[in-house]
Amino acid sequence: MLLSTPVWADETGPTKAPSRPKNIVIMIGDGMGPSYTSAYRYYKDNPDTEEVEQTVFDRLLVGMASTYPASVSGYVTDSAAAATALATGVKSYNGAISVDTQKQPLPTILEKAKSLGLSTGVAVTSQINHATPAAFLAHNESRKNYDALALSYLETNADVFLGGGQKYFPPALLEQFKAKGYQHISRFEDLASITQPKVLGLFAEVQLPWAIDEKDARKLSTLTQKALSLLSQNDQGFVLLVEGSLIDWAGHNNDIATAMGEMDEFSNAIEVVEQFVREHPDTLMVITADHNTGGLSIGVDGNYSWNPEILRNISASTDTLALAAITGEQWQADLARGLGFELSEEEVAKLNVARMQGLETMAVAIRHLIDKRTDTGWTTDGHTGTDVQVFAAGPASELFNGHQDNTDIANKIFSLLPKPKKPKS
Amino acid sequence: MLLSTPVWADETGPTKAPSRPKNIVIMIGDGMGPSYTSAYRYYKDNPDTEEVEQTVFDRLLVGMASTYPASVSGYVTDSAAAATALATGVKSYNGAISVDTQKQPLPTILEKAKSLGLSTGVAVTSQINHATPAAFLAHNESRKNYDALALSYLETNADVFLGGGQKYFPPALLEQFKAKGYQHISRFEDLASITQPKVLGLFAEVQLPWAIDEKDARKLSTLTQKALSLLSQNDQGFVLLVEGSLIDWAGHNNDIATAMGEMDEFSNAIEVVEQFVREHPDTLMVITADHNTGGLSIGVDGNYSWNPEILRNISASTDTLALAAITGEQWQADLARGLGFELSEEEVAKLNVARMQGLETMAVAIRHLIDKRTDTGWTTDGHTGTDVQVFAAGPASELFNGHQDNTDIANKIFSLLPKPKKPKS
Ligand SMILES: [Zn+2]
Ligand SMILES: [Zn+2]
Repeated sequence: MLLSTPVWADETGPTKAPSRPKNIVIMIGDGMGPSYTSAYRYYKDNPDTEEVEQTVFDRLLVGMASTYPASVSGYVTDSAAAATALATGVKSYNGAISVDTQKQPLPTILEKAKSLGLSTGVAVTSQINHATPAAFLAHNESRKNYDALALSYLETNADVFLGGGQKYFPPALLEQFKAKGYQHISRFEDLASITQPKVLGLFAEVQLPWAIDEKDARKLSTLTQKALSLLSQNDQGFVLLVEGSLIDWAGHNNDIATAMGEMDEFSNAIEVVEQFVREHPDTLMVITADHNTGGLSIGVDGNYSWNPEILRNISASTDTLALAAITGEQWQADLARGLGFELSEEEVAKLNVARMQGLETMAVAIRHLIDKRTDTGWTTDGHTGTDVQVFAAGPASELFNGHQDNTDIANKIFSLLPKPKKPKS
Repeated sequence: MLLSTPVWADETGPTKAPSRPKNIVIMIGDGMGPSYTSAYRYYKDNPDTEEVEQTVFDRLLVGMASTYPASVSGYVTDSAAAATALATGVKSYNGAISVDTQKQPLPTILEKAKSLGLSTGVAVTSQINHATPAAFLAHNESRKNYDALALSYLETNADVFLGGGQKYFPPALLEQFKAKGYQHISRFEDLASITQPKVLGLFAEVQLPWAIDEKDARKLSTLTQKALSLLSQNDQGFVLLVEGSLIDWAGHNNDIATAMGEMDEFSNAIEVVEQFVREHPDTLMVITADHNTGGLSIGVDGNYSWNPEILRNISASTDTLALAAITGEQWQADLARGLGFELSEEEVAKLNVARMQGLETMAVAIRHLIDKRTDTGWTTDGHTGTDVQVFAAGPASELFNGHQDNTDIANKIFSLLPKPKKPKS
């Protein structure tokens, strides 16, 4: 579909300057470089039809963005410097949480929005004080200062915190949040009982479970739906950050099946926001990645093929499959069932060796086996410097067309926030 | 694809149809996936300035394209199926030269343009009968039938053939081209003497030399300039195909320094066309890649870095450096000079072993050394299924915004060709 000018966008004509959105939803697929969205299309391809179906990413693509950090950190960014760029419009060093290269705090989009009377929130699958949400909410010279970041959230006045990270919010800190008017929940089922801000919802010790291990749980899309319904109660508008945080974590593990599961739930969350934009045409959604993770490649070792049909049948993460294989007695049959295919003698021999070396080695062996079967390649357990895509819909979405730097994305969003009201004289 | 009602077809609705270009230049960076254009930006970055300068690719980016072939060939395309898609708007099997999956010929953009009275031509760095130009000009069940493809060029009536491939055009065939009115040249210096079509210029046995081995030769951009000046003599307009063919070949070799040299000359050719579009605003330029080659990655093995400053100092292709190192007596000093850095003892030890195994092994060893120094990664000596970028400028360039399939690119270009004149009754 050729929806570079979406039907629900500016209805006043092609020449008029874009109208300013009331609400802005920023969505980040952490680590989601171009190979992830391409692979996801083939993973979702319906084998019963001749055509390859389009994904939500195909529908919403408008441009791309460079991701390099401040020059002191070279050309390959980490999630902290990238999130700082996306949250503040300024490049900084790897590890920085919305401080500049002199370690001075930089104003963030969420802070600016809050100061203008908008509501703000985050909904993520990592701990809520992980690098990406942290850079939108707080400032610290290091992403590793998790406790300090959790503490600093007290001062953000943000309306919605949804994600993982119970271990960073001890009872005394939770009491302080409650004293500030936050409802605190830690069971996912209790989300339904929350009908108005403010809320601090922490649903896991650290990160949420892998999406592939909880089929139909739709956690990120449910968190996103709840965040939208809470934040949209403010007539002034809101800015929401949604992150598919664990796409990156699966990429660091070079775990293609788990990565596709995370992509699928991030895609579900995007569809939730798309629906909200349809119903609230004054809402802009902008989606990007902070960087590319793992050097994922669709095809490997000279083979002109990729076999996602194998991925479609895998019923659990490699972590879960490895744990079951380490502890179970019928492990070969169980693993074959979990993977959806029979293991060859050679595969069993390799797995037998790995199994004796423990859980992590077994998980790696299962990932290698899946890579071999699917023709999936990787170059690193870290990040790479390839540009990422930019997707957008809603008012002013055309601002994001074509090439831009990640700092440009932030600066465009800053420019779309309402102007401060002039004091009456 | 959901192209049943293309926006540009509706000339009565509120979206006015874009004006139709008189001339169309299609440019293909063979194998040039998103990592190549990102890497090229950092390769060209001026180390004396704080900012990272934009490249021509950044300036012209408008969208992306999927590249998968007909389902019989899975999800990873070869250059033939991809060129067939880009030349005809129809997906076929890997190896197909503008024939469908039933091996029946498919009309190409260049054929259609010729039938409408436009001039046509190709300017490439491979042999002119290699897969990409062949699919725009001819039809064959296999890309490997080089002699048949060369022979079939006689029937194309194309006005300009510029590239390599002398070995496929024996004297008897050249006589037939001359009988059809073609000027034949084989020395690059003779290009200046050609002032009007038709021309068959074959400047190498097979492919042209690596650009990095002929600094300042600017061959592809010179061929492009000549093609534009010849083809633009037709008042009816023209369609020109320009291919940076050897980006792909360097990618197959996993040779980053040579790939950046090819990117640089392709970029020069793009700038020539950009200038032509500025001077002839009735010209559309559309640039894309046919697929991604090599699984190139900017950063590898967990290192958050990429070191293009090393590449900027390398003065010859690894093929040339390896040949000199195999035959020369002072090979270590010569190689260090060619690479622009001193070799470590460990590197010398590895190269010593490789040198005894001959030219190809030595070239591979030099590439590995460069990869290690620059933190460059690869996953394959073949292709991968990642989407490629689309760049455009000139009238109707907005048609190429956002996501599309490679077949859509061809179909949009077909839609921009002039309508056949109705016979007078
Ligand atoms: Zn990461
Ligand atoms: Zn190739």
